[in-house]
Amino acid sequence: MDDLVRTSAVEAAARLARRELSAERYVRAHLERIEEREPQVRAFVHIDAAGVLSAARALDGGPVRGLLHGLPIGVKDIFDTFDMPTQGGCLIYSGHQPAIDAACVALSRRAGALVLGKTVTAELATFAPNETRNPLDPAHTPGGSSSGSAAAVADGMLPLATGTQTWGSIIRPASFCGVVGFKPTYNLIPKKGVWNSADSLDTVGVFGRSVADAALFVAGMLDFRDLLVPGAPAVPRIGICRTLQWERAAAETKTALENASGKLAAAGAVVQDIALPGQYADLLRAQTTVALWETGHSYADECFRNSARLRKALFERCLEGYRIDPAEYQRAIALGRQCRAMLPDAFAGCDVLLAPAAAGEAPRGLDWTGDPLFNQVWTFLHTPCVAIPASHGPNGLPIGLQVVGRLDDDARTLHAAHWIERVLCDRAA
Amino acid sequence: MDDLVRTSAVEAAARLARRELSAERYVRAHLERIEEREPQVRAFVHIDAAGVLSAARALDGGPVRGLLHGLPIGVKDIFDTFDMPTQGGCLIYSGHQPAIDAACVALSRRAGALVLGKTVTAELATFAPNETRNPLDPAHTPGGSSSGSAAAVADGMLPLATGTQTWGSIIRPASFCGVVGFKPTYNLIPKKGVWNSADSLDTVGVFGRSVADAALFVAGMLDFRDLLVPGAPAVPRIGICRTLQWERAAAETKTALENASGKLAAAGAVVQDIALPGQYADLLRAQTTVALWETGHSYADECFRNSARLRKALFERCLEGYRIDPAEYQRAIALGRQCRAMLPDAFAGCDVLLAPAAAGEAPRGLDWTGDPLFNQVWTFLHTPCVAIPASHGPNGLPIGLQVVGRLDDDARTLHAAHWIERVLCDRAA
Repeated sequence: MDDLVRTSAVEAAARLARRELSAERYVRAHLERIEEREPQVRAFVHIDAAGVLSAARALDGGPVRGLLHGLPIGVKDIFDTFDMPTQGGCLIYSGHQPAIDAACVALSRRAGALVLGKTVTAELATFAPNETRNPLDPAHTPGGSSSGSAAAVADGMLPLATGTQTWGSIIRPASFCGVVGFKPTYNLIPKKGVWNSADSLDTVGVFGRSVADAALFVAGMLDFRDLLVPGAPAVPRIGICRTLQWERAAAETKTALENASGKLAAAGAVVQDIALPGQYADLLRAQTTVALWETGHSYADECFRNSARLRKALFERCLEGYRIDPAEYQRAIALGRQCRAMLPDAFAGCDVLLAPAAAGEAPRGLDWTGDPLFNQVWTFLHTPCVAIPASHGPNGLPIGLQVVGRLDDDARTLHAAHWIERVLCDRAA
Repeated sequence: MDDLVRTSAVEAAARLARRELSAERYVRAHLERIEEREPQVRAFVHIDAAGVLSAARALDGGPVRGLLHGLPIGVKDIFDTFDMPTQGGCLIYSGHQPAIDAACVALSRRAGALVLGKTVTAELATFAPNETRNPLDPAHTPGGSSSGSAAAVADGMLPLATGTQTWGSIIRPASFCGVVGFKPTYNLIPKKGVWNSADSLDTVGVFGRSVADAALFVAGMLDFRDLLVPGAPAVPRIGICRTLQWERAAAETKTALENASGKLAAAGAVVQDIALPGQYADLLRAQTTVALWETGHSYADECFRNSARLRKALFERCLEGYRIDPAEYQRAIALGRQCRAMLPDAFAGCDVLLAPAAAGEAPRGLDWTGDPLFNQVWTFLHTPCVAIPASHGPNGLPIGLQVVGRLDDDARTLHAAHWIERVLCDRAA
């Protein structure tokens, strides 16, 4: 494997900006990696090798564009791209070609990013998986719905890729593939041109192989330089949050969190146990109600006029959501709102919380993307979340933890996650 | 004028459901009204007379579909429609034909609504007006950005139409045209297929000529029957809210609110004055920051790759938003969040607040859609708002007030608005 495909995005960006590395050379390394590995991993639904090389040469011949100058990115196939089809993993949209880039894609290109290809999504960013396999073991799911993005970044086919989370579609595949996933505060990354699933939950985020890389991607996209991780981040106050789903975590996940707590305290962090307020007990169910009701209504035209090209499982799930009493939906929304307002107290003086990113390792099989139960509540609360690979399970696959930040506190969340990653992950030291 | 085009949607729907009125007859009455008035009003960008008549005949020959059976609706031209172009009042999207309906359009059709045409929007649902005139006086703006929807409903060209509000694009044109505008709680009506402008603010809503009609539209669309106004609504507790922009209200607006307060108390309502918390003082500025930052980022591809087909004023406004410090944007978002959490206290025991819907009458001229300053704060707070025509100004044009409800309390808000409308508006008695 070419070392370039394991170079961090931060390091590559620095070399690209200094013109020590050409964008063409860097892109070629990734195209070679894709050629070698894509038949097994199947992370992409569309690759534009000629187009990205041409764009890379144009960058090499012009001024440095921005923080993402020369970095190839993968774009989940529910983000509109003016120069590539956007098909949403769904037959209804087969061959669909948008005229305009999704806002965050256009912003990334403006900062110098090169869109290398579109990555596989579960059908319409829901639960019905498509063809991607976990690059660490092809018999296991990569998670979903941002399956291709997580797998491609994990496998060195790309340094960075975009994703969305409505249930657990960024943090869970990041955890299963052993990469960093960053779900910012709800609505921080603009959603224009990113296909809606459930408006109150849909959040755009990114994948990278380190916190610093993920932070660079969003910092470049939004020109939000406060997000960049500092060389010497402040030592964070960390709340260990076992969540109200703790009994459903695998033993290895419990061990990972307990071990992390000890390591972080030993490294100098103030670490305390955090119990979530009692009102949070119904949040998991409420998020499910909101996700189902909103998704069922969002896909009205897909279900009512185009159901022949929708998988039966998704069609039936939409009908289930469509049948939920709207008054029950509004009560669920109101509970989310109430619990969100309680977050400042729930953090109990901590900068961030540390919680499981998934129940355990990536499950075996490709017909299920795994359970989002450790993601749903945080998605509903709109908090920034950063998945970090923390250990390994009995199958040798990654166990992730997630750093959960305060609302609108994305910079501090990333900086704390970077500090935590350095303590927990040898590879990031 | 055919009386049918002044019949309420509630009355028409009842007659359509009883088969006393055919959908074809009802649609034809509106097409005739459009033929007569559209050259002056210019509310539509696309009308499909043959298509809607054919769909009406199909309805007449089949079972009653839902609450909206046989009602023709107008759809703002930023809502995708599978059978009509969606062009957003913007040259970039000239001729654009979506493949799939916006969710709320599909849901409306499923409930029996007939999409008669696409209504004029200001460019990309922002501030740059297009060709629509105020049907009450063509020298005056109808307001915007949902200009065509408000004007068409006011003029009897349609009983119902859709709109969106990011600054004040439903409540303000409703006030200027003398119709009812209903902006539900943020995200209640699904946004899929409705073009994004600013994610944290964009809210889908509707226009009708009475609260009962507007409520019927959303109740039918979402199959949310609790929204339908009851025959004998409870007497509401009403807070008179002069807002922190009171000194910028025209004298006639101030008088309208003061008079309303007296009439409502005389009719038996508990009426009290409400002062908004001091923290709300910066909300108007914060909403502006959020709207500009998010809009500037949403339209990245329009600005960076397609600016030749964007009006200069919008391009420059986007650049202005694009240049705002993201940390300042996040502080503005955080203030909105904090003030939203304070709303239960701000309501001080009232069911709804009553506030100005606009500074005054529709301004003269067609180059400006009027100031959204009495709408921005409520849009940011995500509250349900119902504009009601309450009186007239010195030019004989309408003065609107708005009923503001608690979050997620849309049914009670509509019921209270219906009670208030009956007291304030003779025509609705």
